[in-house]
Amino acid sequence: MNAPATFDTVAAPLPAALLDALQAAFGTRCSTALAVRQQHGRDESVFDVPPPQAVVFAESEAEVAQVVALCVAYRVAVIPYGAGSSLEGHLLAVQGGISLDVSRMNAIVRIDTEDLTVTVQPGVTRKQLNEALKHEGLFFPIDPGADASLGGMAATRASGTNAVRYGTMRENVLGLRVVTAAGEVMRTGSRAKKSSAGYDLTRLLVGSEGTLGVITELTVKVHPLPEAVSAAVCFFPSIDAAVRTAMTVIQVGVPIARCELLDVHAIRAVNAHDRLGLKEAPMLLMEFHGSPASVEEQAATVQALAADHDGDAFEWATTPEARTRLWAARHHAYFSAVQTRPGCRAIATDTCVPISRLAEHLNASIAEADAAGLPYFVVGHVGDGNFHLTYLLDPDRPEERDTAERLSAQMVARAIALEGTCTGEHGVGLHKQGFLLEEMGAEALAAMRAVKAALDPLGLLNPGKILPPAA
Amino acid sequence: MNAPATFDTVAAPLPAALLDALQAAFGTRCSTALAVRQQHGRDESVFDVPPPQAVVFAESEAEVAQVVALCVAYRVAVIPYGAGSSLEGHLLAVQGGISLDVSRMNAIVRIDTEDLTVTVQPGVTRKQLNEALKHEGLFFPIDPGADASLGGMAATRASGTNAVRYGTMRENVLGLRVVTAAGEVMRTGSRAKKSSAGYDLTRLLVGSEGTLGVITELTVKVHPLPEAVSAAVCFFPSIDAAVRTAMTVIQVGVPIARCELLDVHAIRAVNAHDRLGLKEAPMLLMEFHGSPASVEEQAATVQALAADHDGDAFEWATTPEARTRLWAARHHAYFSAVQTRPGCRAIATDTCVPISRLAEHLNASIAEADAAGLPYFVVGHVGDGNFHLTYLLDPDRPEERDTAERLSAQMVARAIALEGTCTGEHGVGLHKQGFLLEEMGAEALAAMRAVKAALDPLGLLNPGKILPPAA
Repeated sequence: MNAPATFDTVAAPLPAALLDALQAAFGTRCSTALAVRQQHGRDESVFDVPPPQAVVFAESEAEVAQVVALCVAYRVAVIPYGAGSSLEGHLLAVQGGISLDVSRMNAIVRIDTEDLTVTVQPGVTRKQLNEALKHEGLFFPIDPGADASLGGMAATRASGTNAVRYGTMRENVLGLRVVTAAGEVMRTGSRAKKSSAGYDLTRLLVGSEGTLGVITELTVKVHPLPEAVSAAVCFFPSIDAAVRTAMTVIQVGVPIARCELLDVHAIRAVNAHDRLGLKEAPMLLMEFHGSPASVEEQAATVQALAADHDGDAFEWATTPEARTRLWAARHHAYFSAVQTRPGCRAIATDTCVPISRLAEHLNASIAEADAAGLPYFVVGHVGDGNFHLTYLLDPDRPEERDTAERLSAQMVARAIALEGTCTGEHGVGLHKQGFLLEEMGAEALAAMRAVKAALDPLGLLNPGKILPPAA
Repeated sequence: MNAPATFDTVAAPLPAALLDALQAAFGTRCSTALAVRQQHGRDESVFDVPPPQAVVFAESEAEVAQVVALCVAYRVAVIPYGAGSSLEGHLLAVQGGISLDVSRMNAIVRIDTEDLTVTVQPGVTRKQLNEALKHEGLFFPIDPGADASLGGMAATRASGTNAVRYGTMRENVLGLRVVTAAGEVMRTGSRAKKSSAGYDLTRLLVGSEGTLGVITELTVKVHPLPEAVSAAVCFFPSIDAAVRTAMTVIQVGVPIARCELLDVHAIRAVNAHDRLGLKEAPMLLMEFHGSPASVEEQAATVQALAADHDGDAFEWATTPEARTRLWAARHHAYFSAVQTRPGCRAIATDTCVPISRLAEHLNASIAEADAAGLPYFVVGHVGDGNFHLTYLLDPDRPEERDTAERLSAQMVARAIALEGTCTGEHGVGLHKQGFLLEEMGAEALAAMRAVKAALDPLGLLNPGKILPPAA
């Protein structure tokens, strides 16, 4: 059920005429330098794949269209590249080709304060956007751990800690501009909040991982900064108690803004990295948004539910600085934990299950990881039924990776049996292709293949991603 | 820019072998009686189209698959039929064929109270579902005016009065089971709250108006009944004042649950139909959900904003009975208004614009309607930027329809110029095909055509809908 570990296919050399055309058009912004290619050929995944054959740094939509059209003319693959923070091998050049770097397309095009929408180029990162928005009293809630680009976040249907209340990229992208496989520019939606005007191309492109088009502009929803914000941590005697508290919070309908679980391993890592001095016990890290009265009311409800599960009294972070410190630590958890085993590589699982099955799924997954004896940690968007149990692997001990892949496959099989998914937010990329048939069924996979063939008939847009090779 | 008024093409007769096969399999549940066919060949739209050539009443997913497979084998069109309440000609047999009635597939399959999800067959109506849910302390918020079927609501990406807070079918469908054009059953999603597992087939099917597959089961989100609910009406000296109040409510981020506008014509109609005795002035009809404290706080905020725009003091409907009466009147507004001009047919517009452009758009639309002198009324989901200005036409005076279509086209052109859409919730059907190119552009239309060809290569699933005939 796993994706292949290596990619032996040697890509054909780039046609000289293509390289000439790209260099004529882009000058030094078309690079074949090994260091540049390697930087664009490695992500956080465990795969070893030769780097792309060239990297082009596009600075406009017209340039993106030009690169795609040239690549299509010469039948060469194009791999969109944003911040390079994907976890599942999305940016790897498994069939060679051109890495199309859009990180320089990082202009905030429009902020429509009155409509709570913003239009950005795809290289804008979430931190950059929030920096610009805060002066308007607005914020953009989607926050994967890394400072990802919005184009990449749309492409992987990313979410993060605020999704429990504000939704994922699926709910927050209003419309896109996309360069199609024909090298043409397509608009997928308006700025209206809702629409029934034909097929939902926006949602089809969100989560398509660069395989159906290259995103060149996004219009996304933003939200007013809440009048009051409070963050609290609550420690529990067991993971089970913490998770069951989170489940109840969701089930009774508290509009909690963030509800994150950290296990003891994650706490030790963030304590070491960020000097937080947190108690080494399973912890929920929560945030409440609303009017002062509503925040107080929500917090009181959740405190009572936590007490029912033997949770400690809340510890509050009421100042913006204290809150920022806690959430920065949460966002660093992945990198903090990776640093606890120097030189390691990580395999992050990303299952998501219906909230009622979360405790069962998480407890079993932890028991399996403990029994296997591999180092791991757990952080989780538990309000969404989504968590990351991440194994930390010694790259010199291939048996560790085998074990981790086996445990990951077991965990995915259980998540699917519990009516969940193999990936809540990281995407399929290379790593989860082996799970797609089991999760979606042959008919859905056939429909996805048909859509891919319809919109990218030559199969040149980020080839080899999402869809497993036909049997 | 308008759809054709008549359909002159005469469909080829049904192949006798197909009719034999359907009658052998379905007995009296396959009907060619004129009355049955006519009932399945007429909706609320203004089009005159010959009825379908036969109607099959399916009672299971397997039967739906059987009908589709037979129709595909004989190259005959299949038109899914739920409650027959669509407004844009969705169910009309413009190329002849079989009306596949799924209204008897009306079982509520599962209520997963702990996960706030429910799984239903496509013939379940919204009122039926809410009746079943209320015993669980839950509700399903999507409420088009008619008691539509959930399958049809998904197919048209419906919304209604609660969408301002709870979203549309786009946000509330978790997954579908669908019979494809190959006659196979496809699952499009799990019960996980979020997923990044490949292309978003769920969202592709939601809003596809029966042209990409026949929905046989839906899993949708439901919501806990709020602890407190209050409904209020507020009268304003002008439509402009009412709309500007609604705009401000959204812009400051009040989580209002419903925010509906009724103009004087609509008020007169519901007064006449439901004996409500409402003041004949532009009115916002609002509802607030939450804890008692939060409801009070929201209402106080909105009352203050209304007062800034010279709105009257709120009149409250605090008992469930009083609330039900008001909302029933709102849902009857369309039919109440149609009855004010006996024998008339209606053309309901459905534009949706960014909230900041709503007053400009609505004021101009009303001025145009007043100048034209046609009877009309306005109801609107103004919190979403969506309203229905509906013309009431004498069918014996074709010039009235010409005028209404001209005004509608003007209104759509303006909505698109204001970055909005021709349809917020009713769908394209036959009536809005002429607007799709202008709104979406040639590239998006080409992508939609490619998707349609990929998933329905023979073009037999509800043919002639959404996509305008190729030029």
